[in-house]
Amino acid sequence: LTTAQALADIARRHSLTYFRTNLNVMTKSDDSPVTIADRETEAAMRQWLQRMHPTHGILGEEHGRERMDAEYVWVLDPIDGTKSFITGSPLWGTLIALLRDGKPVLGLMDIPVLDERWVGQLGKDALWNGRPVHAGRRQVLADASIYTTSPDAYGAQDWQLFDALSKQCALRRFGGDCYAYGQLAAGHVDLVVEAGLQPYDFMALVCLVEGASGCMTDWQGDALTVASDGRVVASANHALHAQALSVLSGA
Amino acid sequence: LTTAQALADIARRHSLTYFRTNLNVMTKSDDSPVTIADRETEAAMRQWLQRMHPTHGILGEEHGRERMDAEYVWVLDPIDGTKSFITGSPLWGTLIALLRDGKPVLGLMDIPVLDERWVGQLGKDALWNGRPVHAGRRQVLADASIYTTSPDAYGAQDWQLFDALSKQCALRRFGGDCYAYGQLAAGHVDLVVEAGLQPYDFMALVCLVEGASGCMTDWQGDALTVASDGRVVASANHALHAQALSVLSGA
Repeated sequence: LTTAQALADIARRHSLTYFRTNLNVMTKSDDSPVTIADRETEAAMRQWLQRMHPTHGILGEEHGRERMDAEYVWVLDPIDGTKSFITGSPLWGTLIALLRDGKPVLGLMDIPVLDERWVGQLGKDALWNGRPVHAGRRQVLADASIYTTSPDAYGAQDWQLFDALSKQCALRRFGGDCYAYGQLAAGHVDLVVEAGLQPYDFMALVCLVEGASGCMTDWQGDALTVASDGRVVASANHALHAQALSVLSGA
Repeated sequence: LTTAQALADIARRHSLTYFRTNLNVMTKSDDSPVTIADRETEAAMRQWLQRMHPTHGILGEEHGRERMDAEYVWVLDPIDGTKSFITGSPLWGTLIALLRDGKPVLGLMDIPVLDERWVGQLGKDALWNGRPVHAGRRQVLADASIYTTSPDAYGAQDWQLFDALSKQCALRRFGGDCYAYGQLAAGHVDLVVEAGLQPYDFMALVCLVEGASGCMTDWQGDALTVASDGRVVASANHALHAQALSVLSGA
C-alpha cells in the first residue's frame, strides 16, 4: 500500500501539470488517443518502481510489459479516461494494481482533480480517502442504475447484450471511465458494464469493488486476469451480479 | 448578476445537503427522474426571487411557469444532470438564466461539488470562477472533439444526424450534462450537441458559450428561445458552427 500510495503521488504531480493545457494528442495503433502526459506519467512511475522493487514485474498502458513471471506484478494506467483528460473533464484517474501470482491483491484509484483516493486490499474494507465504503443493497435489476462509458467500445453483438440488460434497469448513464466503479463502491451506482477494456483498465478496480462487498468478473462470471477478454461487469452485490451475468452471458 | 449569484448560493446550500444521501427517486410524467432535492432547491430559489423581484417571471423545471409576459424572466434548473446527481457523480449543476423580452442576457452555471461558477453576460467575457475563458480555435470537424450526454435522448432520425456529424470529428464522448458547455467555453471541447432538451436545460448556457466567443443555436441555426424544439448545438467558433449546422440541418 505504501508503494501504491507513493506511485499515485508521483503520477499526480506529472498528470496535473498537463491537465487543461491544450496538449498535442497522438493516436495509438488501436486508435485510442494518447498524450505526452500519459507517457511521461507512466515513465516516472516505472522508474521509481524499478528502483524500489527491481524484482517486481510491470504491465503498463504506455510502455509495455516486463518480468511478467515475477511473483509480484504492478499493473499501471497513468491516465484512465484519456478522452476525459484531453477534453478538460475532471473524471479521469490513475489506476494502480498489484498482482500476486496473477491475482489482484491491491488496487488504488486516484482522482487528482477531485483529490479522491480509493483503495481496495484483498480481505479488507474498501476505502475512499481513508473512510470505509460499501456498495448498495438494491437486489433487483428494475431498481438498479447502470453505467457504461461509451457504446463505441462495443461490437454489435456485445451491444445487444448490454442494451438488453440496461433496459431492464431503472436508469442507464454513459460516461464515467474508472470513476463509475468508485460510485459503485460507495453505493451510488449498482452496475458498471464495459467491453473492449485492457488489463490496466480494470485490474486496479477488482479489489476496490470486492472490498466494498461488490462483485467484479468477466461476462461469463470468471475471475479477471491479464488474459481476460476485456468484457467486464461489476455489481453492487451477488444477487444483482447473478442477474446481470444471466443476460450478458447470452444464456 | 448579484441576484443570480445569490440564487446559486441558495441552491448550493440545498442541493449539497442531499448529494450522496441515497435519495428516494420519483419519476416524472416525461420519465425523467426527480428527487426531493430538485424540488426543494427550486422552491427555495423561487421563494427568494419572488420576495426580491415580485414583478419578474419564472420558468422552473420543477414548479412551472409564472408571469411569462414580464420584461424579465428567470429560467431555473435547480439540478441539471439529475441522473448524475442520484448516482453520485460530481458533474451536475444549477442553471440560472435571465431573459429580457425573451432573449437571454445572463447565464450562470454553478457546479457545487467542484466549487466552480461559470458566468456569461451579454456583451461581456464569459467567466470561470471570475477569470475570463475563451473557446477553442480548431476550425475543422476532423480536429474537433464532440460531446453529447446520451444517445437515449435522441429519436432515430436525429441520432443519424448526430452520428454522421460526430463520425467526422476527431473524438466523441458521452456524458457531460451542463458541464460539457463549460469545457467548451474554456477551450477543451469543440462541439456539444443535444436533443430533447427543455428551455431550463439550455437557456443559461447561451450567454456563457457566446461570451467565450462560441456559438449556440438550434439545429437550424436559429436563436434559442423558450419555444425552441430542444435540439441544441454549441460550437467553439463560427467556422465549426457552420459545418455542424450543415450536417445537423439535414441539408
